[in-house]
Amino acid sequence: MREQNVYLKNQTLVEAKATWLKALENIGFNGKAASETIPVDNALGKITASPVFAALSSPSYNAAAMDGVAVDFSKLSHANEANPVRIKKPDFQPVNTGNAIPGQYNAVVMIEDVHYVNDDEIELHQPATPWQHIRTIGEDIVATELIIPEHHTVRPIDQGAMLAAGVTKLQVLVPPTAVVIPTGSELVQPGQAANPGNIIEFNSRILSGYLREWGATATRALPVKDDKQCLLEAIRQAVKENDIVITNAGASAGTKDFTSTVFGELGEVIVHGVAIKPGKPVVLAIIDNTPVIGLPGYPVSALLTMRLFLQEMIYNFMGLPLPEPQKVKAMMSRPLHSPMGVDQYVRVTLGKVGQNLMATPSGKGAGAVMSMVRADAILTIPSGSEGLGSGEEVEVELVRPQAEVESTLVVIGSHDNILDLLANQLHRNRPIVRISSAHVGSMGGIMAIRRNEAHFAGTHLLDEETGEYNVSFIQRYLSGTKLQLINLCYRQQGLIVQKGNPKEIKNFIDIAEQKHTFINRQGGAGTRLLTDKILKDNQIATSEILGYEHEEYTHMSVAAAVANGSVDCGLGIRAAAQALNLDFLPIAEERYDIIIPTEYINDSKINAVLELIRTNKGFHEKIIGLGGYDLRDCGEIMYEQ
Amino acid sequence: MREQNVYLKNQTLVEAKATWLKALENIGFNGKAASETIPVDNALGKITASPVFAALSSPSYNAAAMDGVAVDFSKLSHANEANPVRIKKPDFQPVNTGNAIPGQYNAVVMIEDVHYVNDDEIELHQPATPWQHIRTIGEDIVATELIIPEHHTVRPIDQGAMLAAGVTKLQVLVPPTAVVIPTGSELVQPGQAANPGNIIEFNSRILSGYLREWGATATRALPVKDDKQCLLEAIRQAVKENDIVITNAGASAGTKDFTSTVFGELGEVIVHGVAIKPGKPVVLAIIDNTPVIGLPGYPVSALLTMRLFLQEMIYNFMGLPLPEPQKVKAMMSRPLHSPMGVDQYVRVTLGKVGQNLMATPSGKGAGAVMSMVRADAILTIPSGSEGLGSGEEVEVELVRPQAEVESTLVVIGSHDNILDLLANQLHRNRPIVRISSAHVGSMGGIMAIRRNEAHFAGTHLLDEETGEYNVSFIQRYLSGTKLQLINLCYRQQGLIVQKGNPKEIKNFIDIAEQKHTFINRQGGAGTRLLTDKILKDNQIATSEILGYEHEEYTHMSVAAAVANGSVDCGLGIRAAAQALNLDFLPIAEERYDIIIPTEYINDSKINAVLELIRTNKGFHEKIIGLGGYDLRDCGEIMYEQ
Repeated sequence: MREQNVYLKNQTLVEAKATWLKALENIGFNGKAASETIPVDNALGKITASPVFAALSSPSYNAAAMDGVAVDFSKLSHANEANPVRIKKPDFQPVNTGNAIPGQYNAVVMIEDVHYVNDDEIELHQPATPWQHIRTIGEDIVATELIIPEHHTVRPIDQGAMLAAGVTKLQVLVPPTAVVIPTGSELVQPGQAANPGNIIEFNSRILSGYLREWGATATRALPVKDDKQCLLEAIRQAVKENDIVITNAGASAGTKDFTSTVFGELGEVIVHGVAIKPGKPVVLAIIDNTPVIGLPGYPVSALLTMRLFLQEMIYNFMGLPLPEPQKVKAMMSRPLHSPMGVDQYVRVTLGKVGQNLMATPSGKGAGAVMSMVRADAILTIPSGSEGLGSGEEVEVELVRPQAEVESTLVVIGSHDNILDLLANQLHRNRPIVRISSAHVGSMGGIMAIRRNEAHFAGTHLLDEETGEYNVSFIQRYLSGTKLQLINLCYRQQGLIVQKGNPKEIKNFIDIAEQKHTFINRQGGAGTRLLTDKILKDNQIATSEILGYEHEEYTHMSVAAAVANGSVDCGLGIRAAAQALNLDFLPIAEERYDIIIPTEYINDSKINAVLELIRTNKGFHEKIIGLGGYDLRDCGEIMYEQ
Repeated sequence: MREQNVYLKNQTLVEAKATWLKALENIGFNGKAASETIPVDNALGKITASPVFAALSSPSYNAAAMDGVAVDFSKLSHANEANPVRIKKPDFQPVNTGNAIPGQYNAVVMIEDVHYVNDDEIELHQPATPWQHIRTIGEDIVATELIIPEHHTVRPIDQGAMLAAGVTKLQVLVPPTAVVIPTGSELVQPGQAANPGNIIEFNSRILSGYLREWGATATRALPVKDDKQCLLEAIRQAVKENDIVITNAGASAGTKDFTSTVFGELGEVIVHGVAIKPGKPVVLAIIDNTPVIGLPGYPVSALLTMRLFLQEMIYNFMGLPLPEPQKVKAMMSRPLHSPMGVDQYVRVTLGKVGQNLMATPSGKGAGAVMSMVRADAILTIPSGSEGLGSGEEVEVELVRPQAEVESTLVVIGSHDNILDLLANQLHRNRPIVRISSAHVGSMGGIMAIRRNEAHFAGTHLLDEETGEYNVSFIQRYLSGTKLQLINLCYRQQGLIVQKGNPKEIKNFIDIAEQKHTFINRQGGAGTRLLTDKILKDNQIATSEILGYEHEEYTHMSVAAAVANGSVDCGLGIRAAAQALNLDFLPIAEERYDIIIPTEYINDSKINAVLELIRTNKGFHEKIIGLGGYDLRDCGEIMYEQ
């Protein structure tokens, strides 16, 4: 038995990979894939294990290439318009395209050039060349010719060529079998009731899905509860039946993290702990000559760690080179801190605004599945770096096709639920157009427009002096930018409180006096400005509001905090309260506009947005259905410069 | 019943498409796809029919994000190193990552920062912030949030996000069902004995394979014989059971081409005959509100025609936009004639030599499946053009990934069977490296090097005066190019005759005197020069050789012509005779070298070739196995300039 806590080693990724690859070499893992003989009809997408040579020539006989008559060309050598040649059966024979040419003939005359005297005699007005309009044996494929090489992925046309060449079976590589074993007593299957402390078991679906995309034959095991003996048994069985075994969760050092202990008891732990973020606690072991990988429990950690090790393993097993990752250069839209000493993997969204491809982190947290759903690319910040500055050029690895990325409409600014509707409707009408939105508040949106990082920005900034929305801020911060300010909606802002308003909250004075807990929006958000204006109007100090310093970035996050009971109330739009079935105390109606730089007004993606908000009745009905919206100026130009 | 012979119309592609799309609109074909509800677990690769919103928040409870203890942060506000705070149970509770945080706690302190006094009491040295190390309800996904929009192709991560959000079922689009009906009494199934006149039924495999790639649910029907009533019945049944019906062959005007007649009797022929090459006789009809497409019989015609009409139809049916074709600019490596008045589709291979992507037609003939196997792209020559000049820039549509195209080694010149072996071995070792070879003879290869169109060229040109191979030709035609001339092999040239030499052919004098039929190689081929030298040495006039003007481009084509009995003999290498089990009368040993411009000597692809021919024993053994080769100088530099 080896030492259990190799975790503390915290190797660099390069070291860990080298150690691991060596261990795999030692067990003969690379190129281990067997081959099997299968019918050509079942070979689509499979990888050839040996070259395929033609068994027969194609055509396998001399065949008419046209409808017409077969003749001996030497009999027509003197034919011309003035002196046509007449030929009687059996010196000619009618043939259709594809018919075999009997041995006594060596040319075909097209039906259009044949003049029938009677059924048994024809007249021809032109000479013929030897083998004209005849597909001779082997014209397409010569027997023994190479049809497709070894390690080629079979396409439909390859299947056709093999069958045409008389090949009905071929040898293909057998991909590795991989099993994903979820671990944890807290796991429940999708669709089962989940109580607090339960986690829906979805990780194994994500992991096995990508293993299949990389070419493995992946299965999912039933979850194993947090019991050392159960895990031991599950792994003992799994290594007998699979080429690769993957466990999910339990890799860390908590009281219920048995993974590395169990791996060590059954075999040899090669690596435990790598200086990567996320993914640090990964365990790599060899048990019964089978690689066994313990992935961390958080979905994003598990997936990113799997990308680092498993894809390459599958290709090595097949004896195939790893496909080049698709990389593009992009520019950071905001600064990003990264801890020294670890390779950090950051999910980013990309958007092409003007000439620049802008990269924006799509969300934090190893558990944030949605940040991975939204991600367009993965950015690696190497261990030697402390982070990246705004505007810094980076190279990122695409996880979405580049064409899709380039047709993404980048929306940065204030959040409104209409943006989700817009994103869906736009994708429905023209799936190639996607909206990538970053919710950074109204001022954040204006700054993004100023730095030419967004196609449009949503904003609802009230100028307290003029009572006007947005215009004075644009004039101050965007004086150098030609743009149109177009109204999207008027919407109700108010206090979001729990269903039935159990705390009987009435207004901000009440919140301050009764010490109700509040959740705030971030600085620069229009809703934050509204909060501050109300506090000022009512002469309430911010210190009197319990939770004033607790900031969230969207109306939905505020509503979610109220819904889950972590706070008593927050300021937000009616649509957010309605979506989560909460009560709403209206305070003000505000104007929500979008700023579109003039240079993008004629962009086809922006046109699609404007058409939708200006003319689509069904879309307007859906907005009204969200609650608290008035569309009296929707699509109107409110200001232009 | 409509007029049968709409074929004569020969519409332009644009007209035909417009007419056809209008007919499809009339039957409500576009966007006709139904939706069905399926489990998320089965949704990989399916297309959403409606947006998917979160049913639950994730996390669905406040969860520990770290292993540690749950506390009330307000109890630690004054904690520091000098004045640690002690807390007793139940004011703290140990938690593992993922555990639910009971309502009385609002922060988690990491296990590393917890000092246990005893099991029931801990000491903490730092204050905590509210909700630290807690994943609050909805941190990842807020109930009602949009997970994926309509018309989105489901990925593994999307499956994970849906399940995490409590969604176990979703609505996806049902793709159209399409059936391919092969027609023709001459068809036999793969693996069955094929007699002259029989054709192996492989087209339906190619066509259904691509229909599936484009998203349809495609099936293959059994072949229908050339009988009008049988075809009528087959189509009548097929339109009841499918969204799209495709027949293959019989679309033309031969005596057994019933397609358009039958379509007309059962419904309405919308288009018959389009000015495209290949594909002219295509028939487009509507029968019982179902589109029925009659494709020409030749595989390449059928496939190229299907690409023009079917892919768009499938996407229209699903209500999805057609993906943008992947186009690249390339330069023609040779002139190409095209008839006026038709849009011609030409299969081309591509290769990046230096900075230029060179396009070379990959083979002629509507029946040439291998030309499609080898093709990297499709070139469209519009109807208004008479053709393209050498060096002319064209835009082509890729049918192979661009990365693969760019890593293709372009070989132009004399053919030798070793090149096939080399292509396979190279692809085996490094599947990303492919060899694309054009067999244009030794002189053609030298000219390709001169025009910088090839990475290397095979050549075996004998200088009659010096008795030396290749060097004098290089000095004359490639004086401006730095290059290395590297030996590949010595090989036996001789007369290829039928098995057992039934005509008792001895030599060229015999061929001239006995009037045996001969097949020649094209001008510029090294083997052609050898033929001419032998004739001259023996004072035989070319007119004395029957078939001197009948030219082929490769040794294998010459051997195939002998094997199929269309000629008595030809001059070629022993490997070709041996491959087709023919007899061989040796005449000379010749040297076969490859010319590599110095600028490519350090290219990694060329390195792989040189390594293979210089050091790979297994590869040498395989060459010897082909017959007639001597490798005494294999890999040696014979000349350098």
